[in-house]
Amino acid sequence: MGTAPASPPGASNDRAEAVAKAGAISTKPPSGMRDFLAPDVARRRHVVGVIQRVYESFGFVPLETPTIENLSTLLGKYGPEGDQLLYRLLHRRERLARALAPKPGGGGPGELDLSDEGLRYDLTVPLARVVANYELPTYYKRYQIQPVWRADRPAKGRFREFWQCDVDITGTKSLVADAEVVGAVATVLAQLGFADFEIHLNHRELLRALVSEAGIAPELEGTALVALDKLDKVGRDGVTKELVDKGIGAERGVALLAALEAARAPEFLAARAGEGGKPGAAAAAELVELLRIAADGPAARALRFDPTLARGLSYYTGPIFEITVKDLAGSLGGGGRYDNLIGMFSKQPVPAVGFSLGLERILLVMEERQMFPALGVAPQLLVCRFSDVPASAAIRVATALRAAGLRVELFADTPSLGKQIQYANTIGAPFVGILGGDELAKGTLAVKQLATGEQKSLPLAEVAAHVQSAGAPPKT
Amino acid sequence: MGTAPASPPGASNDRAEAVAKAGAISTKPPSGMRDFLAPDVARRRHVVGVIQRVYESFGFVPLETPTIENLSTLLGKYGPEGDQLLYRLLHRRERLARALAPKPGGGGPGELDLSDEGLRYDLTVPLARVVANYELPTYYKRYQIQPVWRADRPAKGRFREFWQCDVDITGTKSLVADAEVVGAVATVLAQLGFADFEIHLNHRELLRALVSEAGIAPELEGTALVALDKLDKVGRDGVTKELVDKGIGAERGVALLAALEAARAPEFLAARAGEGGKPGAAAAAELVELLRIAADGPAARALRFDPTLARGLSYYTGPIFEITVKDLAGSLGGGGRYDNLIGMFSKQPVPAVGFSLGLERILLVMEERQMFPALGVAPQLLVCRFSDVPASAAIRVATALRAAGLRVELFADTPSLGKQIQYANTIGAPFVGILGGDELAKGTLAVKQLATGEQKSLPLAEVAAHVQSAGAPPKT
Repeated sequence: MGTAPASPPGASNDRAEAVAKAGAISTKPPSGMRDFLAPDVARRRHVVGVIQRVYESFGFVPLETPTIENLSTLLGKYGPEGDQLLYRLLHRRERLARALAPKPGGGGPGELDLSDEGLRYDLTVPLARVVANYELPTYYKRYQIQPVWRADRPAKGRFREFWQCDVDITGTKSLVADAEVVGAVATVLAQLGFADFEIHLNHRELLRALVSEAGIAPELEGTALVALDKLDKVGRDGVTKELVDKGIGAERGVALLAALEAARAPEFLAARAGEGGKPGAAAAAELVELLRIAADGPAARALRFDPTLARGLSYYTGPIFEITVKDLAGSLGGGGRYDNLIGMFSKQPVPAVGFSLGLERILLVMEERQMFPALGVAPQLLVCRFSDVPASAAIRVATALRAAGLRVELFADTPSLGKQIQYANTIGAPFVGILGGDELAKGTLAVKQLATGEQKSLPLAEVAAHVQSAGAPPKT
Repeated sequence: MGTAPASPPGASNDRAEAVAKAGAISTKPPSGMRDFLAPDVARRRHVVGVIQRVYESFGFVPLETPTIENLSTLLGKYGPEGDQLLYRLLHRRERLARALAPKPGGGGPGELDLSDEGLRYDLTVPLARVVANYELPTYYKRYQIQPVWRADRPAKGRFREFWQCDVDITGTKSLVADAEVVGAVATVLAQLGFADFEIHLNHRELLRALVSEAGIAPELEGTALVALDKLDKVGRDGVTKELVDKGIGAERGVALLAALEAARAPEFLAARAGEGGKPGAAAAAELVELLRIAADGPAARALRFDPTLARGLSYYTGPIFEITVKDLAGSLGGGGRYDNLIGMFSKQPVPAVGFSLGLERILLVMEERQMFPALGVAPQLLVCRFSDVPASAAIRVATALRAAGLRVELFADTPSLGKQIQYANTIGAPFVGILGGDELAKGTLAVKQLATGEQKSLPLAEVAAHVQSAGAPPKT
């Protein structure tokens, strides 16, 4: 990868290894964490910019919540596994000393004596806290694009700090809200250049009805849904095995999978919706209605009923969604209706529906498919000068070009012109502007395009237009 | 503050208080942390956008480093007080259990047994780690705009999570780099609308020479600089008192303050620069040279030599800077040259110079001076519909208007038109688009501007132009 600033983090650790050998402290980011150099930042910003623009076009307004939340806010919302993955902050000074002091009855401190704050684990629980805390409009339509932290085992494509891009509507049970949320994420993916995504749609109540009809007891329903959620990863045999392992039994497992398969029949939803009073009938009717509402919107082509979709989180109460593309195991994001979560923070329940796009998943697929446009972050021109030109004159020239709208770097030292131009190549600047005594006297700049070798002496006022019209040369 | 979404966080906690009374969990952010609702996010984004654009125009490229760093990276870089203010992450599961297990020799765990990771405390130490870890160009010019965390006592205007906007050049001792860094922040402030800022300039080596000449022993030099750093807060008497308290003595303290005052004379720098060999002569010559290099650049008007400027951090080695405005105690940011810090991570020393702008300080002054332009984040139009209009048709209309570039919200339910329009006022949408059976049949929309009451029936294709040309009405 050479010495280019475009080297992805971790790709070129020669210097890091030399340092490690020399016995100095590690210079790598901690496990599961990443440094983003300029090209990484540019790609992330491009995607976040599209998401932000689309979410705003749907009338969502931004929210940002703090990195640190009280543990009382976080604990008990994500299930026991989630509680385990929370990053907790150690008490400091007097409070830590008190926690660590020997107790009269003996026995050391527990986890909860050492910490009462943790890092944001998702964006939905903070939203619920915010809705309970402020006087907001009846409908609060907010989007939030921020990192979250989970102390999961790092693996390829799985990080401990990653970004979520959430959009939620609180305050209404209307299925129009569900359709709007799904329409917003469908528009995001279309504008990023995805043509082949699918939005899987199911309903928690319908799923519960089918689980019950397969003879699975209500207390094992959650277990069955957790197993089912792995269908696309472990297949039918894997799910059946887990159902057997968890005490649900092969017979009921097979019955459940068969019932879900049968539910794929095109007439299933309408038929179930017509059986008023039967468990799952109202849920099926809601899905029929949601598909009708969304029929002329941006999600219409991508939406499909998928009776096997389960979603891992326990707080969903109604329609649930998940977005997939063919070449990615797992999903680009998911969401659903959760009418009871905000009530955990507020006196009265507040219905809500939302969707979360995973930034790293989207980036992964876009990188593999080379879906990024040219993203200019490198300087467009490097001002070089001969050693007899005063630095103040070079700064004056650079200031004028910057005011004209160019990204301009100024070479700080004055080695040979060849070395200065070599540096321009290293940083990916397509032009150099050479300042000698002659140019200084005439108020011009010798502008050289590195890709073509073409060099022109231009009045300072014409340089910006020349560079911008030539554009960046194709990368070598 | 009523029910508007513009309520600043914390201003309207009626609901939070009701919840607290009801005995539910707290819905406030933790101490020193803040929620940013839409108007806050808009103002922060505006400032960050200007900083980013200016930094890029100077040829700096973006870097982002992780929130979590190894404690080995962070400890010992910020002084003992800094180490105390670091947020540390508690070990989890097996590691925590091991740390808390009773030891054979008795005695509980210490702070370092419980944690080996912490939160980013500034952006300079992560930069030093990055420079040591990757193969970067000879000169690495990066900017970084990210939050940092310090477990300081919260106070008015002091938060535990706050943003820094840093710009640094590594790899050269050339004073052109110092001038570029100072020019970049001066351009940022000018573009944000500040006309009256001052950039105080001093040199660590010159300061050390003057401290020594006042008869203060080398081992008390750091103590003297820490006291001097408080001059603008506690005044001459306060500084003298601290110098006495710390064992430097009144006589030497008075001598130091007198020498610094004398150094304000216009001829001081040039005179000292001419006394080759004398301590501080080389430093004075560097300042003369830096002022000459910057003389035609964007910082020229604001730069002034201030012999009393000390800067708190210990790692500075050369020129130091600080930006002030009249109506703010403290500074908008500061920086300087630190030629030895990166060497703590790397085999060989790498010279560097940088500047850090404090986002919250800038926002504070801009808010007090009302320097923000109109920042549109609210939807521009709310689509309302009568209850006999299908939701799918409203979504079709909203989709068309969004594609035409408008920020459009769709009312999810169908209460009376009056209630829908009332909601448009609440969220600050300047227009409503009313969809009835008539409009549906004709492919039009009844567009009403709420500020004027003017209502027009327009073909769908003309709505966006109408709304955009009218612009947002003045806020009531």
